[in-house]
Amino acid sequence: MSRTVIRGGLVVTAAEETLADVLIEDGKVAALASSGSAYAEGWTADRTIDATGKYVIPGGVDGHTHMEMPFGGTYAADTFETGTRAAAWGGTTTIVDFAIQTVGHALREGLDAWDLKARGNCAIDYGFHMILSDVNESALKEMDLLVGEGVTSFKLFMAYPGVFYSDDGQILRAMQRASANAGLIMMHAENGIAIDVLVEQALAEGRTDPRYHGEVRKALLESEATHRAIQLARVAGAPLYVVHVSAQEALAELTQARDLGLPVFGETCPQYLFLSTDNLAEPDFEGAKYVCSTPLRPVEHQAALWRGLRTNDLQVVSTDHCPFCFTGQKELGRGDFSKIPNGMPGVEHRMDLLHQAVVDGHISRRRWIEIACATPARMFGLYPRKGTIAPGTDADIVVYDPAAQQTLSVETHHMDVDYSAYEGKRITGQVETVLSRGVPVIDRREYTGRAGHGQFLVRDTCQYLG
Amino acid sequence: MSRTVIRGGLVVTAAEETLADVLIEDGKVAALASSGSAYAEGWTADRTIDATGKYVIPGGVDGHTHMEMPFGGTYAADTFETGTRAAAWGGTTTIVDFAIQTVGHALREGLDAWDLKARGNCAIDYGFHMILSDVNESALKEMDLLVGEGVTSFKLFMAYPGVFYSDDGQILRAMQRASANAGLIMMHAENGIAIDVLVEQALAEGRTDPRYHGEVRKALLESEATHRAIQLARVAGAPLYVVHVSAQEALAELTQARDLGLPVFGETCPQYLFLSTDNLAEPDFEGAKYVCSTPLRPVEHQAALWRGLRTNDLQVVSTDHCPFCFTGQKELGRGDFSKIPNGMPGVEHRMDLLHQAVVDGHISRRRWIEIACATPARMFGLYPRKGTIAPGTDADIVVYDPAAQQTLSVETHHMDVDYSAYEGKRITGQVETVLSRGVPVIDRREYTGRAGHGQFLVRDTCQYLG
Amino acid sequence: MSRTVIRGGLVVTAAEETLADVLIEDGKVAALASSGSAYAEGWTADRTIDATGKYVIPGGVDGHTHMEMPFGGTYAADTFETGTRAAAWGGTTTIVDFAIQTVGHALREGLDAWDLKARGNCAIDYGFHMILSDVNESALKEMDLLVGEGVTSFKLFMAYPGVFYSDDGQILRAMQRASANAGLIMMHAENGIAIDVLVEQALAEGRTDPRYHGEVRKALLESEATHRAIQLARVAGAPLYVVHVSAQEALAELTQARDLGLPVFGETCPQYLFLSTDNLAEPDFEGAKYVCSTPLRPVEHQAALWRGLRTNDLQVVSTDHCPFCFTGQKELGRGDFSKIPNGMPGVEHRMDLLHQAVVDGHISRRRWIEIACATPARMFGLYPRKGTIAPGTDADIVVYDPAAQQTLSVETHHMDVDYSAYEGKRITGQVETVLSRGVPVIDRREYTGRAGHGQFLVRDTCQYLG
Amino acid sequence: MSRTVIRGGLVVTAAEETLADVLIEDGKVAALASSGSAYAEGWTADRTIDATGKYVIPGGVDGHTHMEMPFGGTYAADTFETGTRAAAWGGTTTIVDFAIQTVGHALREGLDAWDLKARGNCAIDYGFHMILSDVNESALKEMDLLVGEGVTSFKLFMAYPGVFYSDDGQILRAMQRASANAGLIMMHAENGIAIDVLVEQALAEGRTDPRYHGEVRKALLESEATHRAIQLARVAGAPLYVVHVSAQEALAELTQARDLGLPVFGETCPQYLFLSTDNLAEPDFEGAKYVCSTPLRPVEHQAALWRGLRTNDLQVVSTDHCPFCFTGQKELGRGDFSKIPNGMPGVEHRMDLLHQAVVDGHISRRRWIEIACATPARMFGLYPRKGTIAPGTDADIVVYDPAAQQTLSVETHHMDVDYSAYEGKRITGQVETVLSRGVPVIDRREYTGRAGHGQFLVRDTCQYLG
Repeated sequence: MSRTVIRGGLVVTAAEETLADVLIEDGKVAALASSGSAYAEGWTADRTIDATGKYVIPGGVDGHTHMEMPFGGTYAADTFETGTRAAAWGGTTTIVDFAIQTVGHALREGLDAWDLKARGNCAIDYGFHMILSDVNESALKEMDLLVGEGVTSFKLFMAYPGVFYSDDGQILRAMQRASANAGLIMMHAENGIAIDVLVEQALAEGRTDPRYHGEVRKALLESEATHRAIQLARVAGAPLYVVHVSAQEALAELTQARDLGLPVFGETCPQYLFLSTDNLAEPDFEGAKYVCSTPLRPVEHQAALWRGLRTNDLQVVSTDHCPFCFTGQKELGRGDFSKIPNGMPGVEHRMDLLHQAVVDGHISRRRWIEIACATPARMFGLYPRKGTIAPGTDADIVVYDPAAQQTLSVETHHMDVDYSAYEGKRITGQVETVLSRGVPVIDRREYTGRAGHGQFLVRDTCQYLG
Repeated sequence: MSRTVIRGGLVVTAAEETLADVLIEDGKVAALASSGSAYAEGWTADRTIDATGKYVIPGGVDGHTHMEMPFGGTYAADTFETGTRAAAWGGTTTIVDFAIQTVGHALREGLDAWDLKARGNCAIDYGFHMILSDVNESALKEMDLLVGEGVTSFKLFMAYPGVFYSDDGQILRAMQRASANAGLIMMHAENGIAIDVLVEQALAEGRTDPRYHGEVRKALLESEATHRAIQLARVAGAPLYVVHVSAQEALAELTQARDLGLPVFGETCPQYLFLSTDNLAEPDFEGAKYVCSTPLRPVEHQAALWRGLRTNDLQVVSTDHCPFCFTGQKELGRGDFSKIPNGMPGVEHRMDLLHQAVVDGHISRRRWIEIACATPARMFGLYPRKGTIAPGTDADIVVYDPAAQQTLSVETHHMDVDYSAYEGKRITGQVETVLSRGVPVIDRREYTGRAGHGQFLVRDTCQYLG
Repeated sequence: MSRTVIRGGLVVTAAEETLADVLIEDGKVAALASSGSAYAEGWTADRTIDATGKYVIPGGVDGHTHMEMPFGGTYAADTFETGTRAAAWGGTTTIVDFAIQTVGHALREGLDAWDLKARGNCAIDYGFHMILSDVNESALKEMDLLVGEGVTSFKLFMAYPGVFYSDDGQILRAMQRASANAGLIMMHAENGIAIDVLVEQALAEGRTDPRYHGEVRKALLESEATHRAIQLARVAGAPLYVVHVSAQEALAELTQARDLGLPVFGETCPQYLFLSTDNLAEPDFEGAKYVCSTPLRPVEHQAALWRGLRTNDLQVVSTDHCPFCFTGQKELGRGDFSKIPNGMPGVEHRMDLLHQAVVDGHISRRRWIEIACATPARMFGLYPRKGTIAPGTDADIVVYDPAAQQTLSVETHHMDVDYSAYEGKRITGQVETVLSRGVPVIDRREYTGRAGHGQFLVRDTCQYLG
Repeated sequence: MSRTVIRGGLVVTAAEETLADVLIEDGKVAALASSGSAYAEGWTADRTIDATGKYVIPGGVDGHTHMEMPFGGTYAADTFETGTRAAAWGGTTTIVDFAIQTVGHALREGLDAWDLKARGNCAIDYGFHMILSDVNESALKEMDLLVGEGVTSFKLFMAYPGVFYSDDGQILRAMQRASANAGLIMMHAENGIAIDVLVEQALAEGRTDPRYHGEVRKALLESEATHRAIQLARVAGAPLYVVHVSAQEALAELTQARDLGLPVFGETCPQYLFLSTDNLAEPDFEGAKYVCSTPLRPVEHQAALWRGLRTNDLQVVSTDHCPFCFTGQKELGRGDFSKIPNGMPGVEHRMDLLHQAVVDGHISRRRWIEIACATPARMFGLYPRKGTIAPGTDADIVVYDPAAQQTLSVETHHMDVDYSAYEGKRITGQVETVLSRGVPVIDRREYTGRAGHGQFLVRDTCQYLG
């Protein structure tokens, strides 16, 4: 029976800020007591972590990553090993990645394939969502089984015709099934059919640079799809989680739905909060580094997204981590932006960037933890194991130094990708120590974890429902 | 040179109500003068019509009819001959019918086929819209030609997959083309892909009666499609005319778009204003008489539609006249509502039903003429020839008795169909005399017209644009 | 019996554009006939006006002027004589001015006083609205009488505490009375109580220049009052006409009300469409020339107002003509913007400025006539005498040269004020000839009218109701 | 040093549900530990409370009570002694009552008077808001002092002209002051000026029964005032807390403001969630029992309010406890509803009624605690002392039996008033034991508290700001 005590920090959760010592036993939080109290002083432990002047926060929960994902003939550069290690460096102790159904194949095959990639390789705990690429009777039945096994969320695409795309009938059927089995439908909401017309026209007219990726994937085509997904969910009586919201017009659709009390949720990502079409327009094909879908938007959308995070019209910030190296991967799209692999690195920086947002006054300290830890944990059925610090929870805990200064750079990051989307950005705040189920993964900025420590998480269904 | 004078009536147009005599020469309005003035008294004419105590109004313009339309293995029961004669009986002097492109065939073929059906057979003037069933490069090019020939509007379907359905990419392309050639896109806005899922499920569960036609074609799936069409039109920079709006949720989408100043227009039909799902639920398969798409809605939608007509969020009332006999046609769908031919008779009753709405206080007298005559004429490029009474316009004029009483019935109507959708409905107001280009078609409630009097109208582009 | 014929022009009304000759007899339009037709050619007349290449339009109806109005210890510079003459120069043939009830006095006293000022002095026809400054039982009863005498509209102020201000109880009572007697409530919608606090604070802090007039009269305090007036009107079951809307936020309130089908109307003025806070900020106290209430807004509000005119969320453009000379009048407010007399000259330029808007593409030609002639005529119960050209209407007709070029300037204008708010502005289009009840007032740009020609108009109640 | 341990209960806070033992020392929570863990088992204490099968929740915070309030010539029936005792019986351990400034007097005088009433008499802790009845320069300056002394919120009335009413200028000034001193403006949002007109008219027409109280205080006049208060707060740059929201139209205004990210908050009360105009219409003057302002609304408003609580457009449920006996007090208004003292008893039942809402599925268990404990504590600057259970917080803790059955009745309640507004209502759930700063006030449904235990709370400023 191992015991750890974290002393003297400010324990920050989504709901409370308490000067308390935290006692950890056998990988779980056993008790909290007022710092300096006789009780707390009396605790003995194998390991004592001094958090004086630091925050003691729940480990981050990143609900949207794509390790080793195949896309456009190549693979996302981070493996589960490198990706989860980088996540740990950044204070994230749980990821939920996406297993992919291939057209014509069973969900199970996809899930098995992803299990194989992840098992034994992860530094931190992980779960899976399932991407439905081929919604048919057989796939619908498999959904029930997966919910029973802890894969309780299913992603559909209104974009990428011929690859991941589902038509509105398939979407409706999957939503109906989710309504019955309590699964959560996650939606990539862009009108891909219309976008492909605009892509074809752009290329035919010689508009081939990365910035045209942003121009053809119009905000109106994100908001249209968002509206459509909401209406289909209403018809099906199902909840809906919209991934990577980037356009203020799409956010407005979520706001309207939530005002009606509908179970509609929205996620955004750091790249939409900190980057913009200005990056996509960087010369010498550098814009390719910022190609992802939904695309980056003009800088004025950022204020709307921050406001949405404050008003709770957006509930979650995930990374959509899906890195491709500039050399050899992003370069596939020279002369044709549609061939640039879609995706950006980010799993390592989410907690820091959002702390910077606290420093900048966009959000409060508690809201930082809520959107990055507590809500994704509840959304994906991981609460109270993950996302908070209370007696009985997994001891996934980060000691965070709010005063440290760091500069983001490819030189120093731990993701297996040859560029940083935030090169040179200065951040106030840094992860100091990270525990995963009580075990140090990062110890005073040394990596002490190991591949295989991370376990597969059998998730409950969405905890915002029922 | 023939001359007619209409004396002593109240000339009602969309804009004015004037006690004036109307002088007609060579089929056109030559002059208006104050009734009883020396000028008016001095007019001599071959024919003098006494309109004292009557309204003198522009002939109705019905922008949405389907004569002899093939649907589900049968044909709409009215030919151009019987249908236009019935229209004349009801005070309508212009129809715009829909020529249909068949999948795999040219627009021209469809247009030629419809020309053959109509030419020489019509009692009143007629034009054509073109239904696009197969949007491809060749069809897009033909659109330009048709605009040049006076077929300036193009209907697309978001419903009826496998028949008329266009996907969002086809819709976007057609809208882009219309944006360039000034054509007007008309949209059947229902999410047919989703509806077909619900149809299949309803039938599988034994819900086969006509009323399920209304239940599966959900209001949310009309409003979703309406929203989508509007957004695609914004992307294309094109105007949009949404046909047969029946759901208040769809109307709300139009209202929102129009508040933004977008060139978005909406049409509703008498059946949505006067009938409801109560009719669809009539026993003994009688509900089949009321099967059309978009479907009839619960009665509370009527108030919203009337309000939309008053606020000008709806601009036009057309009939969507597409009659199928109960015996032998509607009966095809016994035991399977999806096999009931979609459509209702109505071309004869539009002017009367809307006058009843004036009597009932829903709309003003001038608004009656605006939504039934003037606006459809402008919308479809027929102004000022049609839709108003002023020097220079075609003398398509109706003498309307606002005090007459009539009862609608299959016994008395002139449409070639074996039932009335308004059987027994009492109406205040009746057409007395109808001139088409100065020629009496109905003369004191006798039919004096002839097949072949009606001419094909080469239409201008939409006059609400540019 | 005098006869005039206007030949060969394009007759433009709110509804039609017709190449027609107009026959005028005894001050009224007797007939219209197609130009060049035998009938038209056969007309003989005392006077023939050649309008070839010109527009023949209804005389303008300016529903909001303040001739000789007392304000802040001085009087508006134009008398009824000079003001109506200037109006005629600009193609306006009807004004509705505001008689004022003084606190503690009867409506009748005010009306008599204004009758005295106007009678025998006007070049064109005129009517009166009544300003209610002291809503009490006696005043409420007088409202009924005034409606019977053709003074059918009543203006209330939510601004100017201690002068014209009515509290919400007085407003509600007046609205209830109007609901019963079919009078129309016109509202100056600004929260004057709150504004006066901001005025006092601004002056106390030394912010005394004219531009602070615009800053303290905040857009939110206009929209607040607009919203409040609408809700009070709903409670009273009364229609509402909001005068001089200048803020897009206030327009948004009107839009929302009209979407609900409420009988709520809005007026804006040329100064809000063409001028902005940039003018208020002109140095050397020149900004004082542009001090009026509601105030000019930042330039971006203009686009919203134009859109509101297109979407019919604004229905009328009036001038709120209330000129004060810069020297001796505006100067009263040097060092204290709150002492600058509120008001601007404009009655002469409305028709020209709005024609410029046609040229600039903001509105269509017919909409120009609708917002400047037809709708104000209907709104204030003057239809069909005024606002259109049809058999039976008053022959208030303007021959307008759409191709003429002019430059607005104090050097050339006819208003009795020492500056032009549009100094140097170039305009395409100019009034050529103006008839008032068939009598030439302006004849090929010579003034041929006389004081006393203009008659008092006994107005009907608002023709948009009932 | 006294120690208490609460064992085996489900600790429910706004954020967490944890099976934990709670250790209390010297009136504060010292530690939480997993129930059954060695640590928890090792705790020794003077008192052990077995909470097995029970909820352990923070004591309720009722932010809106009126003990002994003078109104209409009488006084609210509960003294601070009887009222706080009743509160304790119902699981509420903190009230914030309203001290009243009298017109012409200083805030300090009012505060002193209320201090005198409360000091030494309360069973539980209490704070004060200050009612501003006479906003002038002196009162504005006193606001700063009061914020410094822990009276950090100020209530204004847009209703009750001549009593508590402030005009928009006074409101704006008070808001500006609050913006500077971080005070929170609480608003009674009803247009009292307009309402008084309707009251007078109703009485004059003989509509004198209690139900007319509800009819004259129209929902539109609540929403109007709510909108106005929001706009004035925007002008002042101040936050706003709207008390006792009862109309769905008013809630819609809050929703719209919050969608914009404005610091606008809303409170409702159990009477609006569980009662309706049906109660006001009870015969034999029984409706008088339900007379309060804002008034009860038609029953369909309840669903909107519940939805608002779920969507967080309403954040707080308080009681507005202000009881008047039916005999001798409510009876003052026989024959004149305007003389019925406004107010209802309720301080005892809030926690139970909201638990019933959990049972009925309106809100979740955590949301129950959030709206009744955590949010009011933060809103009024009492966090983390009050409103949650965590190391360091005051040990204001309720052991709540979620399975107990009770029936609300005047026979059993502890408020000093002769009727129950919820007579006969059956409730699932009941308070079993209540600690105030660790001291038992209710011990297994025996009152063990005492007058004078409760202390005055020096409050921080609103913790949702800055």
